[in-house]
Amino acid sequence: MRWANGFIAVDWGTTNRRAYLIGRNRAAQAEMEDDRGAVRIPAGSFPEAVSEIRDRLGNHPMLLAGMAGSTRGWISAPYLPAPLGLAELVEGLVWAEPDRAAIIPGVSYADAVRADIMRGEEVQILGAVAAGLVPQDCTVCHPGTHAKWVRVEQGRISAFRTIMTGEMFNLLRTHSILSEHLEAEASEGQSFQDGVRAGLTSAGPISDIFSIRAQVLLGRMPNADAPSFLSGFLVGADVRTGIAETGSRTLHVMGSPQLTALYAAALREAGRDTVEIDGEEAFIAGAVRIAESMT
Amino acid sequence: MRWANGFIAVDWGTTNRRAYLIGRNRAAQAEMEDDRGAVRIPAGSFPEAVSEIRDRLGNHPMLLAGMAGSTRGWISAPYLPAPLGLAELVEGLVWAEPDRAAIIPGVSYADAVRADIMRGEEVQILGAVAAGLVPQDCTVCHPGTHAKWVRVEQGRISAFRTIMTGEMFNLLRTHSILSEHLEAEASEGQSFQDGVRAGLTSAGPISDIFSIRAQVLLGRMPNADAPSFLSGFLVGADVRTGIAETGSRTLHVMGSPQLTALYAAALREAGRDTVEIDGEEAFIAGAVRIAESMT
Repeated sequence: MRWANGFIAVDWGTTNRRAYLIGRNRAAQAEMEDDRGAVRIPAGSFPEAVSEIRDRLGNHPMLLAGMAGSTRGWISAPYLPAPLGLAELVEGLVWAEPDRAAIIPGVSYADAVRADIMRGEEVQILGAVAAGLVPQDCTVCHPGTHAKWVRVEQGRISAFRTIMTGEMFNLLRTHSILSEHLEAEASEGQSFQDGVRAGLTSAGPISDIFSIRAQVLLGRMPNADAPSFLSGFLVGADVRTGIAETGSRTLHVMGSPQLTALYAAALREAGRDTVEIDGEEAFIAGAVRIAESMT
Repeated sequence: MRWANGFIAVDWGTTNRRAYLIGRNRAAQAEMEDDRGAVRIPAGSFPEAVSEIRDRLGNHPMLLAGMAGSTRGWISAPYLPAPLGLAELVEGLVWAEPDRAAIIPGVSYADAVRADIMRGEEVQILGAVAAGLVPQDCTVCHPGTHAKWVRVEQGRISAFRTIMTGEMFNLLRTHSILSEHLEAEASEGQSFQDGVRAGLTSAGPISDIFSIRAQVLLGRMPNADAPSFLSGFLVGADVRTGIAETGSRTLHVMGSPQLTALYAAALREAGRDTVEIDGEEAFIAGAVRIAESMT
């Protein structure tokens, strides 16, 4: 197999990036994380941004997932349509340097009504399937700036939906009429739970957001509770949509432990069982399988 | 009656303000509009901002509605609880200058689940009732940055809901991952209508917004159509919530003619009849009734 002496696996996000040096034993020997996400890298300077990683982790071959393959990344790796499994990702690799740097394509989904795209989560999800962290048939909830609800059938991604829950929270906190009520940090607690319940039952979530400002101005909600309530409300609305589209009683929640804990709490409130999976572990598992499958 | 020789009526918004010189005949003789909304006026300089209006329209008594009575306005005029009519607004006037400048209070609404507030629309709505522009019992849709759906019963405001539709559009256009697709001007046409239909049937509007980006990136929607589609989608979702809470077959749509036309189109798509009312005419009618009722 190629790269038997090790390689660097990169999960290149929009605002952050993480890289892992994978050794001969197929485990992470070193890692780095910084805020050099795709939006922070000026046009034309992606090769330098790649070199920074090798300066830190060594001059190894690289396997890159996420925004490295987007139109604002290093080299475009077009979306491959779902349903799809690891084999299609390997076939679709785009080589940025001969035998030295491969970019994993993203995944698209489309039906008569809507369309969707992902870049990066597919490596975690299919890696988790390959490593037995999730079953061959399940629904994965992947919270984040752009939360994903992903249907896995026979070990392949068959359909998914993106909900911009994290981004919506940040938009409202930073730029909206509610900003003055959202300066405190959101945390898990009674206000978060109250928000979850409101979000789970809201018929039109956008229509209920302004009420938070009114509750504060009328003295019915302390200003300090508003961020946690809004966080819970948006997560609850997200979960409401996600579980409406799956028959699974157990949801597999994958990502950073802090976020999976919040979503697991909301899913329990909605009467579902949850299994939390560390997204980092799943990513490394996926990158290793892809590297091992390269011909 | 007071102010028989005329007065200035001001509708002080968040980002803009409009003022009308009302003459002895109770009609507008002169008017001004500029972008000196409440957020553009530094703390402590509201008196100067008031003087600017008298410099333009003459040194007359003033009746002020909207943000002039907010905590970031001239003098705080606390919200009065619905249900309420013109008589309560007159009783609740807060005098900023003895016999020379009165501020109209806002209106609050609260039930077990949610709360709401308005400042300014109440003058238009109760003015329209008093002038016979809308019936004593009806539902008024008032589109804008913060759209309002207002239940009028026996000529009084009994309940209302604010939906931050205009603000949501601006947040998404200016600050979100969708920004690059939203540079064109939104307009009424096929894409708007398609968006309205999608919004009217969306079970979770926040959950469907990201699909617009995916549709564009996958070549299923021209970039130039995205703003009109999103505009229609948000208006459709707004209308879906608004009509779910009223038994009225005919909706009275009040505000700027450009916006009332968009909402009337969406309401017709939802199978409702509409009557459009010019918000400016309604505001002047309301201000005149309040001035005439002062003791």
